[in-house]
Amino acid sequence: MDNTELRAWDNGHFVHPWEGMAAVGQNDRTFVETASGIHIVNDKGERLIDGPGGMWCTQIGYGRTEMADAMAEQARQLAYFSPFNNTNSIATRFARELAKRAPGDLNHVFFTTGGSTAVDSALRFIQFRNNLMGHPDKKIVISRQKAYHGSTYLAASVSGKERDRLWLDKADDLAHFLPNVNPLYRAEGQSVADFLDEKIADLENAILTFGADRVAAFIAEPILASGGVIVPPEGYHKRCLEICRRHDVLYISDEVVTAFGRLGHWFASKDVFGIQPDIITCAKGMTSGYAPMGAAIISDRLIADIAGNDATFSNGYTYSGHPVCAAAGLTSMEIIEREGILEHVRQVAPVFQERLHDLRRIGIVTDTRGMGLMGCVQCSLDGNKTSLLEGDYEIGARIDAECQKRGLLVRPIINMCVMSPPLIISEDQIHQMFDVLGDGIRASVI
Amino acid sequence: MDNTELRAWDNGHFVHPWEGMAAVGQNDRTFVETASGIHIVNDKGERLIDGPGGMWCTQIGYGRTEMADAMAEQARQLAYFSPFNNTNSIATRFARELAKRAPGDLNHVFFTTGGSTAVDSALRFIQFRNNLMGHPDKKIVISRQKAYHGSTYLAASVSGKERDRLWLDKADDLAHFLPNVNPLYRAEGQSVADFLDEKIADLENAILTFGADRVAAFIAEPILASGGVIVPPEGYHKRCLEICRRHDVLYISDEVVTAFGRLGHWFASKDVFGIQPDIITCAKGMTSGYAPMGAAIISDRLIADIAGNDATFSNGYTYSGHPVCAAAGLTSMEIIEREGILEHVRQVAPVFQERLHDLRRIGIVTDTRGMGLMGCVQCSLDGNKTSLLEGDYEIGARIDAECQKRGLLVRPIINMCVMSPPLIISEDQIHQMFDVLGDGIRASVI
Repeated sequence: MDNTELRAWDNGHFVHPWEGMAAVGQNDRTFVETASGIHIVNDKGERLIDGPGGMWCTQIGYGRTEMADAMAEQARQLAYFSPFNNTNSIATRFARELAKRAPGDLNHVFFTTGGSTAVDSALRFIQFRNNLMGHPDKKIVISRQKAYHGSTYLAASVSGKERDRLWLDKADDLAHFLPNVNPLYRAEGQSVADFLDEKIADLENAILTFGADRVAAFIAEPILASGGVIVPPEGYHKRCLEICRRHDVLYISDEVVTAFGRLGHWFASKDVFGIQPDIITCAKGMTSGYAPMGAAIISDRLIADIAGNDATFSNGYTYSGHPVCAAAGLTSMEIIEREGILEHVRQVAPVFQERLHDLRRIGIVTDTRGMGLMGCVQCSLDGNKTSLLEGDYEIGARIDAECQKRGLLVRPIINMCVMSPPLIISEDQIHQMFDVLGDGIRASVI
Repeated sequence: MDNTELRAWDNGHFVHPWEGMAAVGQNDRTFVETASGIHIVNDKGERLIDGPGGMWCTQIGYGRTEMADAMAEQARQLAYFSPFNNTNSIATRFARELAKRAPGDLNHVFFTTGGSTAVDSALRFIQFRNNLMGHPDKKIVISRQKAYHGSTYLAASVSGKERDRLWLDKADDLAHFLPNVNPLYRAEGQSVADFLDEKIADLENAILTFGADRVAAFIAEPILASGGVIVPPEGYHKRCLEICRRHDVLYISDEVVTAFGRLGHWFASKDVFGIQPDIITCAKGMTSGYAPMGAAIISDRLIADIAGNDATFSNGYTYSGHPVCAAAGLTSMEIIEREGILEHVRQVAPVFQERLHDLRRIGIVTDTRGMGLMGCVQCSLDGNKTSLLEGDYEIGARIDAECQKRGLLVRPIINMCVMSPPLIISEDQIHQMFDVLGDGIRASVI
């Protein structure tokens, strides 16, 4: 495929997310044009396992005719309705199916266009509620270092990845960040149990320092995804929720990555971590990436707190509950159910995790962590677990390059590679993926 | 159609944009299930002209098989690619086609998921640029009363509709609002020319008051759409741009409503108002509403200002440049071109505007305003042009109800009805629409 002209257009006209200014206009990005199942095909004609699953989102895999048909049928019948004044059965049915699967009293679905707007809307809803309840000063959101919650100004303001904060503005007065909850970085000699106590104390101390009358919410990914698949110690989530309840602080569980089967359940908050949050935010796997959609799912209690007030929640989008996206979401849900994909994930996850942790036998691998079909390999050229040498910044990209030669796309993040393949990946394919990943890591140190 | 069960689900599970808390869960919204051309069909089986064009967005009309086919074909071939690491020819081609049509050196397309995220990203890009250029204090955005720029926290912060600001938080230190630019509200005896001078002085005085070293940008819809189709006096846009240039303040033209043919051109900034902005934001008509998408189109100059810096614009979305949405956008563009829809709009707009202004003959109509295929009728029960009586708050909704009985959906905003039908509306249909609107207005005062 000669794509010289296309490449020039991509360089010249398409500003990508996280565009680096050093090489802007000269990126010569790889074109991906077709995909099927768990594989993508790039412009060199190479067929690669999609290790990152698009961007943690291609749950049911690529090339599903049933999805294309459902979306086309909806586009023919009704491609758009205004959710401001009217409603529509596809969006309504999807809202109901989401409410059925969301834990406990999370029954109210506020549709958005993706994860960033889901978090933005969830936070604005809490501001709105607290204003109506006579607590206009209860607005601080507690988040964590390495957290990622999106890239609208407000969602970015509660995201704690240092590099993303270098050159962009944030609403710093609205957010507070707790220290890293990754037990890898606990003090020498500290037990995981003590580390956990410390992390819980971090949360409670922050609330007490600001005063509970100023803290609106705690926002947390059950597993910090793009921060490096950080799995907090067991029991962390429940104890955080207890602290929040004790101080009347709301708990937003950001399941943009963990929902829709990534951990083997529709939502992970309750089924995996035993907690009942006040709001769950979700996106990505919600449509398996076939269409842009997100949602903030709000509890009965929060709605009841303010129902009857003569006030309007002046928030929402032209595309809230978009019928073609809702059709994609409903159909993806039906496929996940019909094909038993949640059960499949629970069945193959132990193999995935075992193969992931096996990588520790390679010298430069300093940590592996994961759960369900999420995994992260962390490397350091000198085997140092906790700090980065200069050369370490390139390891992820080198591993990615070596793996691509061997048929696997990985997502490099500095010295880490994160994996979240389509959920339909078979046990054989998991073995194949980790065989390549191991070879790629070994090749990248030679 | 018995939709008792669906209605209960909609009430119980689907939180709509701008949801009022007074009646939350009891709205019994009308279901819209099918649509074709300029008509929607509601759950009573009534076929209505879609006066608001969905939400200012259904340019090519409903039920286009070609759109459904293009989206389905793309979904089968590649439903998702990660725009962070790779690229794709559909998104690239759409970026190039947008750049070709955007005025002057607006060549860099940053795709988003809708208008709110387009504005949020445009503002974050300007913050990023000013930080890199050593102007971290140059951050205030000047906007206007009645402006609407979206509902992420940041986009809402620069939106000036009073009612939307009642219960929701805003970043007030980042925004300043100029007085209403609607000449209807000029002082008694003031000429439009004097009013225009005053509005221009408002902008320059605001810049001088803050100091140009603190003002980053002026953001303006060419016509303030949901604020009530406010058309500033002729020459306003050019003079605002001159003021901005003189003080090194960037000009964001928010064309979420006016682009893609609403005023008879791809973009209105240059072709209608003669200005070359630094960024154009767009969405809605970009896909004719068939899929969620938006963009901030950035000038060569702004990119050149910061190219080569070792800094990353840490902003963007999982769904930036989504291939199915890009396929919808490209196909809608092809249809607009092939069917001569821009020319059609320019041809029928005078009829639309004439019929709109004819409504002034009805007693309660106190103002009509519009341009292209945008129009607004403003009413007051006692004929007062500038203030609202208690009963006036209901007029819009009453007109809507009367019009719906007669086959026309309108979008009521307090005492106004705004019209922005699909661009394919024929001259006959325009007459039919305004016949009904006139009857509906007359019936609503009896």
